Amino acid sequence: MTGELVISLDAMGGDNAPDIVIEGASIARERTPNLRFLIFGDETRIVPLLTRYPILKGCCEVRHTDKTISADEKPSQALRRGRDSSMGQSIQAVKDGESCAAVLAGNTGAQMALAKFILRTMPGIDRPALASLIPTNRGESVMLDLGANVECDENNLVQFAIMGAAFARSVLGVAKPTVAILNVGVEELKGSDAIKEADRMLREANIPMDYKGFTEGHGLGSGEVDVVVTDGFTGNIALKTAEGTAKMIANLLKRTLNESIVSKVGALFASASLQSLKNHLDPNNHNGAVFMGLNGLVIKSHGGASSKGFASAIIAAIDMAENDLAGKITRDLMNFNSSGSNDIDENVNEKKDETVIEMNIKEIQ
Amino acid sequence: MTGELVISLDAMGGDNAPDIVIEGASIARERTPNLRFLIFGDETRIVPLLTRYPILKGCCEVRHTDKTISADEKPSQALRRGRDSSMGQSIQAVKDGESCAAVLAGNTGAQMALAKFILRTMPGIDRPALASLIPTNRGESVMLDLGANVECDENNLVQFAIMGAAFARSVLGVAKPTVAILNVGVEELKGSDAIKEADRMLREANIPMDYKGFTEGHGLGSGEVDVVVTDGFTGNIALKTAEGTAKMIANLLKRTLNESIVSKVGALFASASLQSLKNHLDPNNHNGAVFMGLNGLVIKSHGGASSKGFASAIIAAIDMAENDLAGKITRDLMNFNSSGSNDIDENVNEKKDETVIEMNIKEIQ
Repeated sequence: MTGELVISLDAMGGDNAPDIVIEGASIARERTPNLRFLIFGDETRIVPLLTRYPILKGCCEVRHTDKTISADEKPSQALRRGRDSSMGQSIQAVKDGESCAAVLAGNTGAQMALAKFILRTMPGIDRPALASLIPTNRGESVMLDLGANVECDENNLVQFAIMGAAFARSVLGVAKPTVAILNVGVEELKGSDAIKEADRMLREANIPMDYKGFTEGHGLGSGEVDVVVTDGFTGNIALKTAEGTAKMIANLLKRTLNESIVSKVGALFASASLQSLKNHLDPNNHNGAVFMGLNGLVIKSHGGASSKGFASAIIAAIDMAENDLAGKITRDLMNFNSSGSNDIDENVNEKKDETVIEMNIKEIQ
Repeated sequence: MTGELVISLDAMGGDNAPDIVIEGASIARERTPNLRFLIFGDETRIVPLLTRYPILKGCCEVRHTDKTISADEKPSQALRRGRDSSMGQSIQAVKDGESCAAVLAGNTGAQMALAKFILRTMPGIDRPALASLIPTNRGESVMLDLGANVECDENNLVQFAIMGAAFARSVLGVAKPTVAILNVGVEELKGSDAIKEADRMLREANIPMDYKGFTEGHGLGSGEVDVVVTDGFTGNIALKTAEGTAKMIANLLKRTLNESIVSKVGALFASASLQSLKNHLDPNNHNGAVFMGLNGLVIKSHGGASSKGFASAIIAAIDMAENDLAGKITRDLMNFNSSGSNDIDENVNEKKDETVIEMNIKEIQ
């Protein structure tokens, strides 16, 4: 790690802001000595908190704003009046080169709308996607889109595959990641037309990935591939189903181990092992979804993340910044485009002005 | 329980046919004394197996056919040449009133195509849906569609809700089941147009259900509602994701409990409790998805089910037959239609001849 890294934070986003944000920043700072923060939000609430964390206080700058984006604000409202909010200013700092990434909790639709408007999409990308690491049987995989786009066509899915592969190379350190599209079966004739066409395009593409075709819901937990590509509706439901199932099993396990004295003794003996499993499955340890395909890094933390979870999101942001995620995506897109196997209009994002973005944000509400 | 119950079985479907089918039938017979079977398939393989189960042998009739549907057969092929196969004949027995339900393992697309063609859809139902019980934190819930229809409109979703509620009243015994549509958020403005319109229609409907609006992926594991309604693509992926996650956790738990002597001792003490949890989550104990909306009961078993799993599917079939699932659906549809809050064309299934069905089966391939 070289030089100084600056991360911008929206101190006012998420369920327990600003406390969780400041405490999370302090935890991340302890692990990353060359880290500095630009913190946006209500200084009357932030500054008193900072007195508890003298080291953090010494390496951050607080920029005051009264304006915040509420959890129930629509993306269109956020676009109209949120650009000088703590969220908007955190993203603007990335655009202006003041920070290498913004880490935000809270209103996802507003984050997406503001990030897309302020940073714009990369050339060759029609729509950004939300990507994250998910725990599997053999470690971690990347899944995208997790909810930025309710409906996706074949070009979107192909672009998601390219971005997901770059993510796996950057963050998981896999040279040639295995990639698959989530589908209801592995046979080529299954699924929607968009999925079948994306499958055909990826089979012919010339990019550093090992494209495997389709994977089913079972493949998420088993970690069958490094990168799972899907539309935002399915991805959001699959991610939350997996999290919900893990939580259900944890509850049932707790209840069942408390049923008798014998099983309580068992649980006591097994407690260290059970704790390590709990850590592997804890969403706080996999926190930090990234809006991929923008000209700048914006990382979304779970709204209900703990301070440890918020620190994980900051550390994920550092990883992506240091491993040149954006550069990898740009190069892969250029290779894909020059292989002539697609119809992506490179200038598509140039055409988008605020009105068009407002019209398009229906998809992320 | 009164009178004699006859179930027709395709002895040749599933990964370990006919052994699993015959053994499963024997297990189900032990638990249900008034049960009889019509067994379709290759008698040179079935009859020798039956010698192992004298009680079963005394209450079943084997009808020989050489013709079977293979696992990779397309629905269109199954329709063209499969109507006198063991699968087709099992369904025909329901149509002819010889059996009260058919229980089938193996090729789901072929099952759906043949069942739809032979039994036809109920008046008021455009498309059948695949429904099943899923394990939750508070017991079991019903989910549909699990993969019969890749794309669904608002009328399909409303019909799925009505059928799912009838399923919950029949099989779970809930007088007024809670019902929700699976979505990426609980706010009314989220999701596709079809989902939003189905939500509006269900809020106004006059049927014995407690409609709750939207539920997210988390709600599946927590058992937030009795009935979860979704399209077949999302439902299939959510179900398999939940099963895959449960399997992943079981594997990790096993691995982690074997890590040290102390944790092995813990596992030993907790083994009875862990076994009861395993039973609750075992897909074999929730086996038996039903094709809802047909003029007759067809139950699909997992292709890879154990004999115990196949027996569960038979017992589920008996439950549905005895609790008049079809009658409940018909009455609810009539109430819904007479409340005037829908555009369902009651005669839609009358128009369907074989050609139309062949054209429509794209959705279930």
